[in-house]
Amino acid sequence: MKARKNLIVGQSGGPTAVINASLSGVLTEAAQNKNIDHVFGMVNGIEGFLKDQVIDLELAVPKKDRWNLAITPAAYLGSCRFKLPADLNDPIYAALFEKFEQLDIGYFLYIGGNDSMDTVDKLSKYNDKINGGLVFVGVPKTIDNDLTETDHTPGYGSAAKFVATTVREITMDAEVYDKPSITIVEIMGRNSGFLTASSILARRFENDNPRMIYLPETDFDCDIFVERVKKEVEEHQNLVVCVSEGIHDASGKLICEYDSEVGLDAFGHKMLAGCGKYLERLVHGKLGIKARSVELNVVQRCHGSLLSGTDVEEAFECGVKGVKAATFGLTGTMITMNRADNKKGTYEIKYLPKPVGEISNGVKPVPSEWISENGSDLKKEFLDYVSPLIEGEITIPSIKGMPKYLSRK
Amino acid sequence: MKARKNLIVGQSGGPTAVINASLSGVLTEAAQNKNIDHVFGMVNGIEGFLKDQVIDLELAVPKKDRWNLAITPAAYLGSCRFKLPADLNDPIYAALFEKFEQLDIGYFLYIGGNDSMDTVDKLSKYNDKINGGLVFVGVPKTIDNDLTETDHTPGYGSAAKFVATTVREITMDAEVYDKPSITIVEIMGRNSGFLTASSILARRFENDNPRMIYLPETDFDCDIFVERVKKEVEEHQNLVVCVSEGIHDASGKLICEYDSEVGLDAFGHKMLAGCGKYLERLVHGKLGIKARSVELNVVQRCHGSLLSGTDVEEAFECGVKGVKAATFGLTGTMITMNRADNKKGTYEIKYLPKPVGEISNGVKPVPSEWISENGSDLKKEFLDYVSPLIEGEITIPSIKGMPKYLSRK
Repeated sequence: MKARKNLIVGQSGGPTAVINASLSGVLTEAAQNKNIDHVFGMVNGIEGFLKDQVIDLELAVPKKDRWNLAITPAAYLGSCRFKLPADLNDPIYAALFEKFEQLDIGYFLYIGGNDSMDTVDKLSKYNDKINGGLVFVGVPKTIDNDLTETDHTPGYGSAAKFVATTVREITMDAEVYDKPSITIVEIMGRNSGFLTASSILARRFENDNPRMIYLPETDFDCDIFVERVKKEVEEHQNLVVCVSEGIHDASGKLICEYDSEVGLDAFGHKMLAGCGKYLERLVHGKLGIKARSVELNVVQRCHGSLLSGTDVEEAFECGVKGVKAATFGLTGTMITMNRADNKKGTYEIKYLPKPVGEISNGVKPVPSEWISENGSDLKKEFLDYVSPLIEGEITIPSIKGMPKYLSRK
Repeated sequence: MKARKNLIVGQSGGPTAVINASLSGVLTEAAQNKNIDHVFGMVNGIEGFLKDQVIDLELAVPKKDRWNLAITPAAYLGSCRFKLPADLNDPIYAALFEKFEQLDIGYFLYIGGNDSMDTVDKLSKYNDKINGGLVFVGVPKTIDNDLTETDHTPGYGSAAKFVATTVREITMDAEVYDKPSITIVEIMGRNSGFLTASSILARRFENDNPRMIYLPETDFDCDIFVERVKKEVEEHQNLVVCVSEGIHDASGKLICEYDSEVGLDAFGHKMLAGCGKYLERLVHGKLGIKARSVELNVVQRCHGSLLSGTDVEEAFECGVKGVKAATFGLTGTMITMNRADNKKGTYEIKYLPKPVGEISNGVKPVPSEWISENGSDLKKEFLDYVSPLIEGEITIPSIKGMPKYLSRK
């Protein structure tokens, strides 16, 4: 490898509120790193790169715009969902490496979740196989917080802050009427309940709403649920319940699939309206009380108005550390965040590159010892874990009342 | 009436992000007004008042908390949906006025929408009938912005700002993938399209998303819609469409009712999942493209993170002016906001009390001359109207990453 090579960076998977903070960290460090010549960005990840969708990132985002980039939600470079073949003899690898050579790429940074780390892993393995001399490094990102080997992931803190704040506001809204009611909030997370669990931060005092929280890490029983709802509404009038989209019964069947027993829609498809909607109908049907459901939907991952300062800072730092790991030659790694076991109770993170292969195949659930015995609440251990992740406020610059975000267009 | 009487204030109808700003305005002015002795609050509106749910508002919210009250969403005093009987001979009126006398009430302020103004109107008429000597004044509130005789209503600006910002963020999220897609955003408004119309503020440049906006003020045609979606997706790849929950066909049938043709749910009820969900299925079924829908739901009325500074200020001022109108003896009025016809293009509001009887029975639609001929867009006149209403940012104080709101509990 000649002394100074170029760096290329891409974003992949579902967007988050801070994936661009990591991009800004990569760009900021790479543009000033003496081992790196120039910084390119791939548009729409590896899929766009295959179609030569590459931009000059230093030109596109000059210094003055790099903070604005950091607080812009969604993926500035665009994203993709693209899995590289398992067979390293597939011609796609040779094609990719030819393109790397054309651009004189020495460092490849990829910001994403499990599937993106799989891409980093495979490219790094192919590189080893052909002695390519390139370096492939992953930068973590996911609101699900389900990557292994890292205390948490960038994107989770801001999504958790949005969920907790919004659940508190929904609770305040639900409590204005002096009439029995249940509000069910459906939160993202098919297999991992970290985001739904964060709704516990909305609780202001003992017995405050949300009084019931259900994660996909435990089995859900509709009969027990209805009984509990009856009791809670009798005792406390207004009940707010938070559920992960992926809650399921003991047989593994998703609660949102229960709806499909009803029939097909006009186009012959299963009528799935989400588990929140199903439970709303269930409670209203069985107990006759006022029931409504709110699906937080994509807003929980793309909002910019409730960023966690901690999350933005850590996401940026993961980008910076990714570039440093790359110039150290640590190929096949992902930057992980490790919480210092701090006796003083202060919060401190150490960044370490770890082998990406192990991470790309694993999924981290909410530890069962953090979930209450009846499966409808979180213990203090979870609160201690999540609380520091939502701290710190970010002010978004605005023009005429609208947020000022950075855009490629 | 003796020189100094007490004032009582209540909140009614659906909560908004700034209904407490009006309450704060009432309290702040009333506490210092030399014509007023003491300020009481009715908990859960007139319904709670009938059950003697009254608090000492000056004690409950001391001076130091009045700004925090102003930026707290949902109704601090709680709310109700309670319609007084049309017959003024109904004994409920005598019962209410006896309670007024017990508390030495001279001024009654009620913050709410149409139904609440109906309460103000009836109480004022009964008062005239018995020569009660009390003063009844309404303070407007509704995210729907459908009250007549006022340029706009407190609550609309903040809801519009949330809608516009969130639609922009959803658009950014929708555009990260290089694949054809449609995202349908369902926005509150059964009869009035003002809130849905505000999504036009999310448009950054000509032909930007949201490219189609449908209000209940026009008829919706599913076939024309699907044809248009097909064309837009072919030309622009990612399409974002905003629809009011109350869109209907030429026969007046709600689009969300179309779903009911499919069948009943497990509890024998119509399976209504909203018009957004229906249109998502329609587009996916007919065109086979990736389709998703997002229902903004109650979050659009109870969020605190995207308050319009203009809205907070005006809501507060409507409260202040309500107290002043009351001490002037202007019973049976509601405070209206009137936009000065300002040649310089600056925005200026004059507050005037107007007879509440006319207001309580009317509903203001989006003027047809502000809606484009094909019914799927808004004209510049609407943009000029709505733009000033979302201006100004408010910073919510926070503790450990969560908003610091004022609560009765």
